[in-house]
Formats: sequence, C-alpha cells, structure tokens
Amino acid sequence: DFLSAMDEVHPAFGVSEEELLQVVQNGIIHYDPIVDTLLHEGKLLVDQVRTSTRTPLVSLLLHGPPGSGKTALAATIAQASGFPFIKLISPDNMVGFGEAQKVAAINKVFMDSYKSPLSVIVVDNIERLLDWVPIGARFSNAVLQALLVLFGRRPPKGRRLLIIATTSTRPLLTDIQMADVFDAEKRVPPIASLDALLHVLKEVELFRDDREISRAAHMLRQAGLGDSDDGEPGRLMIGVKKLLSVIEMSRQEPDQIVESLVNTLVQLS
Amino acid sequence: DFLSAMDEVHPAFGVSEEELLQVVQNGIIHYDPIVDTLLHEGKLLVDQVRTSTRTPLVSLLLHGPPGSGKTALAATIAQASGFPFIKLISPDNMVGFGEAQKVAAINKVFMDSYKSPLSVIVVDNIERLLDWVPIGARFSNAVLQALLVLFGRRPPKGRRLLIIATTSTRPLLTDIQMADVFDAEKRVPPIASLDALLHVLKEVELFRDDREISRAAHMLRQAGLGDSDDGEPGRLMIGVKKLLSVIEMSRQEPDQIVESLVNTLVQLS
Amino acid sequence: DFLSAMDEVHPAFGVSEEELLQVVQNGIIHYDPIVDTLLHEGKLLVDQVRTSTRTPLVSLLLHGPPGSGKTALAATIAQASGFPFIKLISPDNMVGFGEAQKVAAINKVFMDSYKSPLSVIVVDNIERLLDWVPIGARFSNAVLQALLVLFGRRPPKGRRLLIIATTSTRPLLTDIQMADVFDAEKRVPPIASLDALLHVLKEVELFRDDREISRAAHMLRQAGLGDSDDGEPGRLMIGVKKLLSVIEMSRQEPDQIVESLVNTLVQLS
Amino acid sequence: DFLSAMDEVHPAFGVSEEELLQVVQNGIIHYDPIVDTLLHEGKLLVDQVRTSTRTPLVSLLLHGPPGSGKTALAATIAQASGFPFIKLISPDNMVGFGEAQKVAAINKVFMDSYKSPLSVIVVDNIERLLDWVPIGARFSNAVLQALLVLFGRRPPKGRRLLIIATTSTRPLLTDIQMADVFDAEKRVPPIASLDALLHVLKEVELFRDDREISRAAHMLRQAGLGDSDDGEPGRLMIGVKKLLSVIEMSRQEPDQIVESLVNTLVQLS
Amino acid sequence: DFLSAMDEVHPAFGVSEEELLQVVQNGIIHYDPIVDTLLHEGKLLVDQVRTSTRTPLVSLLLHGPPGSGKTALAATIAQASGFPFIKLISPDNMVGFGEAQKVAAINKVFMDSYKSPLSVIVVDNIERLLDWVPIGARFSNAVLQALLVLFGRRPPKGRRLLIIATTSTRPLLTDIQMADVFDAEKRVPPIASLDALLHVLKEVELFRDDREISRAAHMLRQAGLGDSDDGEPGRLMIGVKKLLSVIEMSRQEPDQIVESLVNTLVQLS
Amino acid sequence: DFLSAMDEVHPAFGVSEEELLQVVQNGIIHYDPIVDTLLHEGKLLVDQVRTSTRTPLVSLLLHGPPGSGKTALAATIAQASGFPFIKLISPDNMVGFGEAQKVAAINKVFMDSYKSPLSVIVVDNIERLLDWVPIGARFSNAVLQALLVLFGRRPPKGRRLLIIATTSTRPLLTDIQMADVFDAEKRVPPIASLDALLHVLKEVELFRDDREISRAAHMLRQAGLGDSDDGEPGRLMIGVKKLLSVIEMSRQEPDQIVESLVNTLVQLS
Ligand SMILES: Nc1ncnc2c1ncn2[C@@H]1O[C@H](COP(=O)(O)OP(=O)(O)OP(=O)(O)O)[C@@H](O)[C@H]1O
Ligand SMILES: Nc1ncnc2c1ncn2[C@@H]1O[C@H](COP(=O)(O)OP(=O)(O)OP(=O)(O)O)[C@@H](O)[C@H]1O
Ligand SMILES: Nc1ncnc2c1ncn2[C@@H]1O[C@H](COP(=O)(O)OP(=O)(O)OP(=O)(O)O)[C@@H](O)[C@H]1O
Ligand SMILES: Nc1ncnc2c1ncn2[C@@H]1O[C@H](COP(=O)(O)OP(=O)(O)OP(=O)(O)O)[C@@H](O)[C@H]1O
Ligand SMILES: Nc1ncnc2c1ncn2[C@@H]1O[C@H](COP(=O)(O)OP(=O)(O)OP(=O)(O)O)[C@@H](O)[C@H]1O
Ligand SMILES: Nc1ncnc2c1ncn2[C@@H]1O[C@H](COP(=O)(O)OP(=O)(O)OP(=O)(O)O)[C@@H](O)[C@H]1O
Ligand SMILES: [Mg+2]
Ligand SMILES: [Mg+2]
Ligand SMILES: [Mg+2]
Ligand SMILES: [Mg+2]
Ligand SMILES: [Mg+2]
Ligand SMILES: [Mg+2]
Repeated sequence: DFLSAMDEVHPAFGVSEEELLQVVQNGIIHYDPIVDTLLHEGKLLVDQVRTSTRTPLVSLLLHGPPGSGKTALAATIAQASGFPFIKLISPDNMVGFGEAQKVAAINKVFMDSYKSPLSVIVVDNIERLLDWVPIGARFSNAVLQALLVLFGRRPPKGRRLLIIATTSTRPLLTDIQMADVFDAEKRVPPIASLDALLHVLKEVELFRDDREISRAAHMLRQAGLGDSDDGEPGRLMIGVKKLLSVIEMSRQEPDQIVESLVNTLVQLS
Repeated sequence: DFLSAMDEVHPAFGVSEEELLQVVQNGIIHYDPIVDTLLHEGKLLVDQVRTSTRTPLVSLLLHGPPGSGKTALAATIAQASGFPFIKLISPDNMVGFGEAQKVAAINKVFMDSYKSPLSVIVVDNIERLLDWVPIGARFSNAVLQALLVLFGRRPPKGRRLLIIATTSTRPLLTDIQMADVFDAEKRVPPIASLDALLHVLKEVELFRDDREISRAAHMLRQAGLGDSDDGEPGRLMIGVKKLLSVIEMSRQEPDQIVESLVNTLVQLS
Repeated sequence: DFLSAMDEVHPAFGVSEEELLQVVQNGIIHYDPIVDTLLHEGKLLVDQVRTSTRTPLVSLLLHGPPGSGKTALAATIAQASGFPFIKLISPDNMVGFGEAQKVAAINKVFMDSYKSPLSVIVVDNIERLLDWVPIGARFSNAVLQALLVLFGRRPPKGRRLLIIATTSTRPLLTDIQMADVFDAEKRVPPIASLDALLHVLKEVELFRDDREISRAAHMLRQAGLGDSDDGEPGRLMIGVKKLLSVIEMSRQEPDQIVESLVNTLVQLS
Repeated sequence: DFLSAMDEVHPAFGVSEEELLQVVQNGIIHYDPIVDTLLHEGKLLVDQVRTSTRTPLVSLLLHGPPGSGKTALAATIAQASGFPFIKLISPDNMVGFGEAQKVAAINKVFMDSYKSPLSVIVVDNIERLLDWVPIGARFSNAVLQALLVLFGRRPPKGRRLLIIATTSTRPLLTDIQMADVFDAEKRVPPIASLDALLHVLKEVELFRDDREISRAAHMLRQAGLGDSDDGEPGRLMIGVKKLLSVIEMSRQEPDQIVESLVNTLVQLS
Repeated sequence: DFLSAMDEVHPAFGVSEEELLQVVQNGIIHYDPIVDTLLHEGKLLVDQVRTSTRTPLVSLLLHGPPGSGKTALAATIAQASGFPFIKLISPDNMVGFGEAQKVAAINKVFMDSYKSPLSVIVVDNIERLLDWVPIGARFSNAVLQALLVLFGRRPPKGRRLLIIATTSTRPLLTDIQMADVFDAEKRVPPIASLDALLHVLKEVELFRDDREISRAAHMLRQAGLGDSDDGEPGRLMIGVKKLLSVIEMSRQEPDQIVESLVNTLVQLS
Repeated sequence: DFLSAMDEVHPAFGVSEEELLQVVQNGIIHYDPIVDTLLHEGKLLVDQVRTSTRTPLVSLLLHGPPGSGKTALAATIAQASGFPFIKLISPDNMVGFGEAQKVAAINKVFMDSYKSPLSVIVVDNIERLLDWVPIGARFSNAVLQALLVLFGRRPPKGRRLLIIATTSTRPLLTDIQMADVFDAEKRVPPIASLDALLHVLKEVELFRDDREISRAAHMLRQAGLGDSDDGEPGRLMIGVKKLLSVIEMSRQEPDQIVESLVNTLVQLS
C-alpha cells in the first residue's frame, strides 16, 4: 500500500539529496541574467507537474557545451521542487555496469518514482549513459531504447513526474531520434562576456584588490577576449566549471596570478 | 479444453482493458472528420474478422507522425470490438527485456489469442519494439523476424484474429519488407488546419471566453499558421498529443496564455 | 531397426498432414493453365525420386512474388506424392528459436526423413528461415550453411528424398550461392490477366449475378487493369492470396462491393 | 603405444571407407583424358609421401566449378593409396556444429592421423567448412585459422600425411591467404566437349540405340553446344554431377528424351 | 572508519612504490631544460590538489612519441608528491584481462584512492588500456567509458585526487572526446638536439674518452643529425628510451662503438 | 624460491628443445652469406641480454616471405644461446584455442621465463597467432594487445629476456602499431640467385652427377631464372622451404628429374 511504498521511497530520497548537493559543490553564481531565466523556466515546469491533470509527465532537456553548468542547474531545479521523490541518474554511479545492469538501474529509479505522488528525476549526461563515442558511432542501444521508452512512458494513474535530462551533445539526440521526446528544451550557454567573467572572479575572490581586476580586464580586452570598442563581441567562450578550475590553477602562483590567468584563458579561446 | 482456456484468457483481458484505457487518457476529440473515418474503417475490419470464413487473420497498420494519436485510435478500435480477447503489446512493458525475452513475450500474446474464438492484438510502436535507431541502422532482427512471421501466421482452425499495428516510421517498414504484410494501412495525420486546432482549444477549455479564442486565431493566422486569404494552406502541423502538452504549459502563465501558446506553436512549426 | 524407425516416422507424418492441409486453406483454384503445369512438373520429379537409382536426391525451387501461391502448391505436390514421410519446415513453427535451435530442428527433419524409403520435405519461405532482412544484409549464416549442406547431402543408401523449397526473394538465392543447388526451379507467377481474376471471383461467389461480374470487368478494363483493345497487357498484378483477402474485405460493404473491389485493385496495381 | 594407437585408428578407417564409397556413388566415368591425368598426379603425391624423408607432409588442392567431380576424384585417390589411415572431413557431417565444435572435430582427425605411419585426409569443400557466404564476406575465422595451421603443421617424427583439399571457390583461397599453403594444385574442369558428353550418355545408357545418340548430337551441335565446323569451341559447360542429374530427369519422359535433354542443356549453357 | 580505511590503503601504497621505481629504472637524465620544466609543472598541480578547496580533482595529461619518457616522468612526479596514496594503473598488469575485469580493476584503484585524504593515480598508456588498434578502429568502449567518467568524477567530500595520464596517441584522445577532460596537458618531446644527445652519451659513459665523443658528434653532424652551420635544425628525433637501447646495442661491438651508434641513429632518423 | 622455480622451468625447457629441433628438420644449409650474417646478428643480441644491465629486455623481429626460413633461423639462434629457459610460442600448438586461452598460454610462457635469470622466447608466426585474415581485416585484438604489452614489458629485477618474433606479413605490423616495439629487425630473404639454388641442389643430392646439374643450370638460365649475360638479375624467387618441397616432388619422376624441377620453378616464378 501507499504508506509502505512511502517507506521505500524515503531512503532513496535521502541518498539523492546528498548527491544533488555534491554536484553543486561550488554553488550557483549569478554571473548572467540567463542563469535566473533558466531557474525560472524550471520552476514553471515544476508547477505544471504539480497542477495540470492532463500532463502527468513533463520532460525538460538542458543542453550546452561541456562544463557550462547543466548538472548544477538541473540539480538546483530538482532540489527546489520540494517533491517527495528526487533522484539523480548519473554515469558516475554506474562505472563498470553492463548494458543490462544499467538499464535495470535506470528503470528501477522510474519504477520507484511511480510510488510517489510527485517526483523529479534528473537524467544526467545522456551521451555518457549511452556509452557514446563518435569513433564508429558506438553506443549502447539497449540503454538508448530504454531511455526512449522511459522518457515517454506515462506514470500510473495519480502519479506525476518531471524529468530533467542533460547533454553536451545536442546534435546526437537528433540523430538517435531522442530530440522529439522532450516537452521543452533549453540551452545552457558558456560564459561569453567579460562582465560575466569578472563577476565570477569577484565572487571567488581571486584578486586582492580592484586594481588587479582592472588590470586583468584590460589585458583580456587587449587579448581580444572582451568586446572591442566598436562593439564586436570578444572571442571569450568558457564553461563556468572550467573557469573555476583555471582560477584555482592561477592561484598556485601568487606572484603572477593575473598573467597566469590571462595566459590560460587566451590559450583556451 | 476450451473452458479452462477461457479461464486463462480472462485475466489477460482484464489487465488489458486497464492498459487500453490508460493510453486514451485524454479521450478522443473529434477535431476533424478523418477521426471518424479512421474509427469506421477499423470497425469494418472488426466485422470482417467476425464474419468472413476465408480470412481468419486480418491486419491493419496505423501510421503517422509522432503524437498524431495512433495508439489512442488503435486502442479505441480494439476496445470497441467487444472481442473476448483484447491485448496491447507495447514497448512500455518491455523496458530492459533482452531480445529473446521480448520475442517470447510477443509470441505468448499470440499463442494466448489462439485460445479465444475472436481476438484483437494491438502491436504498438513497431520501431520501438524493434529497438530501431537510424545511426548504424541498428535494430533487433530477432524481434523483426518474429513480427514478420506472426503478422502472417494464420490462427488455428476456428480462431480469428485482428492485428492493429502502429508506427511513426512508415518508410522503415518498406526497408525491412514489412510493408506488404498488412491487409490494410491508414495514415493518422497531424492537426494541420486552424479549425481543428480551435476545436481542440475549445474542448479542453483553455480560454475563459470566445474573445480570447478569436485573438489567438487572429495571431496564429498572422503568424502564417492558418490558411491565407488566397487559400494557401498554413504551416501548422502538430500532433494532438504534443498540442495537449503545449496547451497545459501555456496554462501555467495565466496572464499571457495566448502569447505563450502562439509563441510555442510558431516555434514548433 | 527399420520397423521401430517407421514407428517414429508415423506420428511425424500425421502431424504434417494437418499442417499441409492448413496451408492450402482456400483450396487450389485453377484460374490459369500454369497452375496445372506446375502441379504436373512436380509430379514428374516425384516420379523421378521414386524410380531413378542414380538420383536419390532431387530438389525443386518454387519462387514468385509474395502471396502467389507457392506454399499451397508445394504442399499440394507433396501431399499428392503419397510418400510415407512428408514434412513441412516452416518459419511459422520456429518463432523465437535461436540459430542453433533452428538448425537443429531443420536437421532433425532431414535425419528423420532418412528413416523412410521415400520422403518429401517442403522447406517453406527460405528468406524467413534465414532471418533475412535487406537493411544491413542481415541473416543467420548458421541456418544458411545448414541449408546449403542439407540441400546437397545425399540420403544414405536405399533412401530417396524430394526437397521442395519456396522463396519470394529469388535474387537473394543467387547472392548467397544457393541458386545452383537445386535440380530444377519454377516460377509461380501472380495473377496478371483479367480472365484469371474473373475466374477466381466466380469461384468464390463474390457477386450475386453475372451482371455484377460484367460491370466489374468493365470497370477494371476502364481502369487499365485488363488487356487494352489493341492487345497491350493491363497493369494487373496480384497474388491469389492477396486477391482472396481483398475480396473478403469488399464483401463487408454489400452495397458497393464492385466499387470497393475495383478501387482496392486499382490502388494495389 | 603404437599397437593400441592402431586399435583406435582402425574403426575410424572402417567408417571412412564407407563414406568414401558413398561420395563416388556413380563411379568414375573416363569421359576425357584429363580424368586419368588427375588420378595419375594424385598417385605421384601418394608415392612421394610414402618414400621421401624430407617431406613428411604433402598437400594437394583440387579446384573446379560446382559438380565437376572434385570430391569423387579426391576420394578415389585417397582410396587407392591403400594407406592405413584414410579419412574424409566433410561439411555433410557437421551440420549444426558451432565454430569450436567444428575446429575440434577437424583437429581430432589430424591428431588421429598422427597415430598412423601413413595417412590421407580429404578435406572436402573448404568454402562450406568455412561457412563462407559472399554477402558481407562472412565466414568462420576460427575454422579458417585452424585449417591454415593444420595444412602446414608437420606430423610428428616418423609420421607422414597426404592432405587432399577441394573447393569450388578457388579465388577465395587467394583472398584468405590459403593459396600458398599447398604443395600442388590441380583444376578439375567441367565437361566442355560434345565427345565427352556423348561418352557419358553412352555409359549411362540413356538412349535405346545409336540413332537417338546421333540425333541428340546433331541437335546439340545445331544449338551451338558442339564445336562449329570452323573449329570454334561450343558453349557447352556442365559438371558431370549436374549432367547425371539432367539425364535422369529426361528419362522420366520416355517419349521425348532427346528433346528434354537438349532443352535443358541449352538452358543451362 | 578512517583508520581502518588507512590500513587498507597502506599495502596498496607499498606495492606501488616498487612499481614506480621499476618504471624509472634508468633514472632521470637532465639532458634538456624541458625535463625540469615538466617536473616543476607537475609539482604546481600537486600543490593545487593539496591546497585549493574548490578543485578536489585535478588531472594532467602527458603525451609524446613512443619512448620519450612519459611514464618515467609521471612516476617521478607522483613519487615526489609524498601523498599517502600513490598508485600506477598500467596495461602491464592487465594482460589477458577481459573488458569487465579491466574496468573493475581500474575502478577499484579510484575507489581505494577515495579512502585517502590525498592521492595520486598514474594512468599509464591510455591507448593500450583501451586495447586500441587503428585497423578497424577497434578498442574497448567499456574501458573508454569508464575512464571518461573516472577522469571527471569528483572524489567524495574531504578527499582530493591528482590524476596523471600518459599517451603516445594524442590525436586519438580528441577523436574519442577525451581531450577536454583534463585540467592541463603537457607534451614530452623526443630528443632533437645534438647537445641533449651528447649529454645522455656522457651520462651513461658509452665512450672511453672525449676524443671519441668529439668524433661521434662530428660524424652525426656530417650525417645531418646536428644543427647545420647556417642554423637549420638537424633531423635527429629519438625518444630517450630508444636511445638508451641503441647505446647498449653499440656497446656489444667495442671495436666500432662510434660507427655502430652513428649508423643506427642515422637509420632511425 | 629460486630453486623450486628452476624446477618448474626445467621440464618446460626440455619440451621446447624437442620442439626447436623439430622446426629445423632439414637443417640449416649455408646457401648464401646472408645466412651467416643473420645468425651472427642473433648472437650479438644474445650477448647484449647476457651482459648489459640497462637493457634487461631485447627483442628481434625476423620477417620475410613465406618459407624463407624464419622459424628455423629463430630456433637456431635461440638454441645456440644456451640460456636456461628457451621456449617456442607457435600457432601449431594452439589449434582451436579461444582468444582468452591463447592469451593465457602466451602470458604463461612470459611469466615462466621471469623465473629464469636468462631466457629466450621465440614468438613464431605473429599473423597466425593473431588469427589474421585480410578479408574484413579480421584478427584477435585480445591476442594483439597482449603481444603489444608483452613485447615491451620489462622482466622483474634481475631477470633478462630475449624475444625473437617472426612474421611473413611485415606491413601488417606497421598497421597494428607493432613495428616500433622491436629493438632490431632483420629481413630473411628468399633464394634469388642461381648460385644459392645450385648450392641447395648439391647439398640435398638431387642429381646423380655434375652433368645433370650443369644441364639444370643451363635450362634455368634459359628460362630467365639466372642472371642474364648483361648482369640483369633473374626472376628466381623461392623460399628454401618451398624449394625443398619442389625438389622432393621432382625426385618422384626419376626419368625426368631435371625437366620436372625446371618446369615447376618456372611456373612458380
Ligand atoms: N550559474 C551557475 N550555473 C551552473 N553551475 C555553476 C554556476 N555558478 C557556479 N557553478 C558551479 O560550476 C560548476 C558547474 O559544473 P557542472 O558539473 O554543473 O557543469 P556541466 O555543464 O554539467 O559539466 P559537464 O559538461 O562536464 O557535465 C559546479 O561546480 C557549480 O557549483
Ligand atoms: N482524435 C484523437 N485521436 C487520438 N488521440 C486523441 C484524439 N483526441 C485526443 N486524443 C488524445 O491525444 C493523445 C494521443 O496520444 P497517442 O499516444 O495516441 O499518440 P501517438 O501517435 O500514439 O504518439 P506516439 O507517436 O508518441 O506513439 C491521447 O492522450 C489521446 O487521449
Ligand atoms: N491456384 C492456386 N495456387 C495456390 N494457391 C491457391 C490457388 N488457388 C487458391 N489458392 C489459395 O491461395 C492461398 C495462397 O497462399 P500461399 O500461402 O500458398 O501463398 P504464398 O505464395 O506461399 O505466400 P507468401 O509469399 O506469403 O508465402 C492459399 O490460401 C490457397 O488455398
Ligand atoms: N570422371 C569423373 N570424375 C568425377 N566424378 C565422376 C566422374 N564420372 C562420374 N562421376 C560421378 O559424378 C559425381 C561427381 O560428383 P562430386 O560430388 O564428386 O562433384 P563435386 O565437384 O565434388 O561437386 P560439388 O561442387 O557439389 O562439391 C559423382 O557421383 C561421381 O560418381
Ligand atoms: N629525462 C628523462 N625523462 C624520462 N625518462 C628518462 C629520462 N632520462 C632517462 N630516462 C629513462 O628513459 C626511460 C624512459 O622510458 P619510459 O618508459 O618512461 O618512456 P615512455 O615515453 O613512457 O615510453 P612508451 O611510449 O613506450 O610508454 C626510462 O628508463 C627512464 O629511466
Ligand atoms: N639457411 C636456412 N635457413 C632456414 N631454413 C633452412 C635453411 N636451410 C635449410 N633450411 C630448412 O628450410 C626449412 C625452412 O622452413 P621454415 O619453417 O623455417 O620457414 P619459414 O620462413 O618459417 O616458413 P613459414 O613462412 O611457412 O613460417 C626448414 O626445414 C629448414 O630446416
Ligand atoms: Mg554535467
Ligand atoms: Mg503511440
Ligand atoms: Mg508461402
Ligand atoms: Mg564436392
Ligand atoms: Mg610509457
Ligand atoms: Mg615459420
């Protein structure tokens, strides 16, 4: 019955909360309005699942380049729903799983979710779940077929489910006919403006004072990473995850933080 | 003997009825004459199975774009037959099945049907049953070969069977030489006229009053989704399933339902 | 010893007789002289097996488009031989068999036949036995190799065997080097003349009177399915199996039998 | 020890003798000098194995079109050697064997042969042993690798072995690098001259008198199957095995034997 | 708890130390400034792992031609970290492992490392771990997918990990989408200058006196392996590992060491 | 400990000695200076393994056309080393082994060798160990990867190992990236000069007297197999193994030995 079902559900939920916190380890920095827009759109879908009787299943795809913050955003939206069942399906927990084992683990999360009236499942990094590799176009068709079915399978009567999936290989999803499956999809862009970059630098307190920030900004603009005077966009293009890594690496050479940071950013762009 | 065979059949039937209702969750909206035509043609085949002694096996293929309503129509025709054995074969119930397991499950439904004098089997979503994916043209040949045989295998003496199969990938069926197998095939078209669209909007009571409907109609026509004045058809093209999803999403922003709806429809077309 | 071997053979034979009747469910309609020619040529080979000591193994391939009547003709020839061992190898009885299981089942029939002085084996629908599908040119090489050997393997001393194989994909047989294996091959053509068509219509008593037949003939000729006045052949081309199905479908709409029949035939051609 | 080894060998030999007779069921007809040449060359190699100490392993490849008599000739040479161990490796006895099973069976024959001072192994129909099919160029690499090794593996000290292999797909052997392995190779040609054909016809006593033979010869020459007057070779080209089959088929229609025979031969050429 | 976890870790560490020494069997010769630069950059990353809280996972890729010294450098950096958990993942210890076994072994090292507060894992020779071969572009996708996940999977709270990976096939890493995964990557170049070469020759005391060295230098310059007078770089290009092998081979012919060495180097370049 | 390890090693060594003798069944004929050069170069490497502390692992590749004498030379060098552990890894002993079994057997030989202070391993016929076939470029990647690792894996401290590998498909080794692995490689050429050929003929005493030899030489030169008068090299090209086989075949026809020999040699060239 429902009560004992709820019992089964609780521990699962507890485990996931820790997992979800883990993937947002460096918090959400509001470096650009798009960050709030994405969180808001996630909230609208959460509300739809909670209220509409006609759509017991709603699914959202977050896609964007590696390290742009997809997983952290998906986890944040899921966490904020306050639904009694929240679960992360991630390749991190499936190293060495065979195809059948992977499909069983994924299916189990969906079956578990059907025991809760309201659920969110984050399906992280679809291409990795699929064991995708471009050479020879190899992937696990068993996992793919399971996801294609699960992304479209209505929960049983009285149950509602929000699916948030992430991927860095959006074009692949069209090739495997998974693109049509989602009710909505949003792009999580990389950091592409100097303002956003400086916002992050300030937030993580890389520099001792504003003078250093100005110097860094000046050097980056000189290197063509900021907008030029005649309004042409710079060549900056970096995921927030990579940016945080680059920042910490620069921190190791306190005497030349600015130079080290700018050098690395220029090389990456 | 027959009686005990019937016993075995009953529970199977009961299960299916619930399943069949489940896949028509939002009912059948008669938004276009084609809907009734399709249901009528289904009825003719049901009658043929019931009456003709020369054709103990009759098969129908319903094909059309994703979300056009194939599964709901197939289930409705099956339900309406009133035959003692009605069963849905669906990928939804086979997540994680291996090839052999899938073939066994499918074959079992056919063997079970042979115990009833009159049966309908809905074989839903052939491409998914086949684990079809265009990359590398991968699919389960074992399932394919089983279906090719089962779609043409006459029931034993005194038994009659109607098969209704659905697919979103009609051209694939030609490639795998499954096209010739069916006695009849019908296309389930997407919603392509503004009238049909407005019919659905009214039926699901998205708007508070007729003024809003008129405004939406006007905006859609402006956006090129309705027929132009000189009779050119609009670019509207959406499955009823997707339409219902879009409608519910718009409902989440009560202040700008019309804008939200029109925007999404324009983007999709 | 031979007697107990005969015991083993008998039930096998009994089962097959029922199976053979089953595949000729609608009888043999003599709609065209070719039908008798084919049956006669089958008889000659039966006689050769019975009488010639130099050819203890004789094999015949019947090929033709889907539904042209291959299986029914093969079964009829086999039945008429009156040999003590007659057996049908058909994909219908092998749904879900793995490769090895299929090979074992096929081989067993041949081993069983070697216990009888005179045998006929009908190997029905080679392409399906092979799990053939054009996409990726997939098929069971294990079954293919078994058939290639079995079709050429002489029965043990004092035993004689006639093999009748059928296929709808004659060109495939060349590709897999199976074409040379047969001692003789015959084409089973589809119905291509109006006379043959009308013969069938009369035989199954679709129409109430001759007037309706005349009307149908007229309409079909108008539609270009009959020979034109200047002797050009019509575009008619339909297997007897499909034709019987089309006829029964038309029977469902008693008010417009002729129209329905002609319409469908035109669409198919 | 050697004696008990000989015990093991005897039954194997006994079995083979029957098998060898079986494959020469219609005897050897000396329709052309090439037949004697081939038998003589086989004898030379048998002698070499018996006498030369430097070549304890000798191998011969017989190749030619399907039905040209390869198996019968190989068996005849083997039989005539009078060696204490003679064994036929044939696909006929391996229907349904898996790769590993086939390799084990083949290897066992070679291991068994090492127990006899003098041995002949006939490896019949290499392409079938390999499960070769041109579509997709599929074959058993396990069997191929085993044959490549076994064809070149010297028997242990004091043992001598003659290998006679046959194939209808000589070019394949080059592709799989098996061509270099043999010490000698000979082509077994099809029957290509009218004289050879008539020789066979007489030998099997198809006709009642010489007049019929003359008539047949005349008709065949007319049909372009015999040498033309100005010495151009005819288009005749038929394996002795197929020819014997065609002859028996003609025998079924006593009233028109000549016509039937000529017709079929013309069609085949 | 932590203490017992540490117990588990110790033996693992002990084993690895020996392994690490083994792969630097011929020590590190400082033949070029790049050697120290590489070791210094490794040290910076070791420090980052030790100090930064934001990057508990840091990864470095060392790539370069075969034998350029990648493994020895990676092991030296790892050894110098002084971290309580240091482990080498190498194909040398996985001969004959199946895919699953390999993945399990690799995963276990990572799981073990999570028990130590600070860890270094050297993942040696990625292309060999992947069973990579260019013919047919074959490799173990299971191992690849495991590495892709493990290289990006954050250690649990409070644990920090440095990964040093090596490869001789840097372009492959782009093809399999593994290039983006690393925080930093450095090229280990082959020896390309005569000075570096002579440095090694002296260090390993190949020659008896300086005259011989001069002679060798002269001959190599003549052969175009040293910089030409007008500053063009020579064609010298050899990994330090191969160079050490060539040196020992020359040592076998004491009378003509110089000639033998120069000859071989010229042939290799 | 070492003593018991030695115990394990002895029988292995004994077995190999017999095997090594077996593959040099016809001795080494010194038909050309290259034969001694090759044996000498093998000896130098044997010495290097015995004396240099820096290179505990040395590997040599012998390549050349089929039958040029690679295996016999490798075995002769190994035998002459007098090392306590000498072992032949050959496809001849692995017929029917699965991939895993083969890898295990190969790996075991290497593990066994590590128990002896000085070892030689002959890895014969790499392409056959790999189950290589050009059609479809099929081979055992498991065996390949094992060999790639084993050919480069240093023996444990205090152990030294010489590897001699042979192949007839040298270009393949480049394709599978195995070419760089060896410390040295030598070509074993076929017999290409008339002098070398005559040397062999004399050695095996094919002819009764010198007159016959002269006649043969004359005929071969006429046939273009010897150097022409103006110094152009002849078209002779035959491995010593094949030559010995051809010689024995000619011996079967005592009356026409010269003709038979010359004929066959001309055909082969
Ligand atoms: N606005 C933000 N959005 C997302 N992540 C942020 C933001 N601000 C800071 N972060 C931090 O940046 C990191 C984003 O990493 P995350 O793993 O979510 O990226 P990703 O796009 O999923 O990467 P990958 O493509 O490797 O899966 C997290 O550590 C997160 O705490
Ligand atoms: N006239 C109609 N025909 C079919 N479905 C209708 C109709 N009116 C409303 N619906 C509703 O629309 C939905 C159609 O979804 P359905 O799953 O049948 O589409 P589908 O074509 O099978 O989709 P898919 O391609 O994803 O399999 C159902 O919820 C059904 O209740
Ligand atoms: N002259 C005829 N020859 C063959 N079948 C006939 C003839 N007249 C009537 N029939 C009926 O037509 C049907 C022919 O179907 P059959 O299964 O033999 O065709 P087929 O060519 O084997 O089809 P498929 O290509 O699907 O295997 C049978 O029901 C048979 O009773
Ligand atoms: N001169 C001959 N040489 C070979 N076979 C002959 C000869 N004369 C008569 N025969 C008969 O012809 C038949 C030859 O068939 P056989 O199986 O040897 O041909 P094959 O070339 O091996 O055929 P396949 O290509 O199918 O393997 C045998 O029945 C044999 O008895
Ligand atoms: N400066 C140096 N850097 C690296 N190795 C050195 C250096 N000086 C001497 N060596 C010695 O050179 C050898 C380098 O071999 P190593 O196995 O590290 O090369 P590698 O690039 O990993 O080779 P492979 O491509 O085969 O994996 C070791 O024996 C090491 O002791
Ligand atoms: N100088 C020689 N070098 C090598 N083999 C010789 C020589 N003289 C005589 N022989 C004999 O020639 C034969 C060479 O055969 P071997 O198997 O070594 O050739 P191979 O190149 O390994 O052949 P394969 O390519 O088939 O492996 C042996 O029987 C050997 O005794
Ligand atoms: Mg992510
Ligand atoms: Mg559907
Ligand atoms: Mg049929
Ligand atoms: Mg044969
Ligand atoms: Mg290395
Ligand atoms: Mg060899």
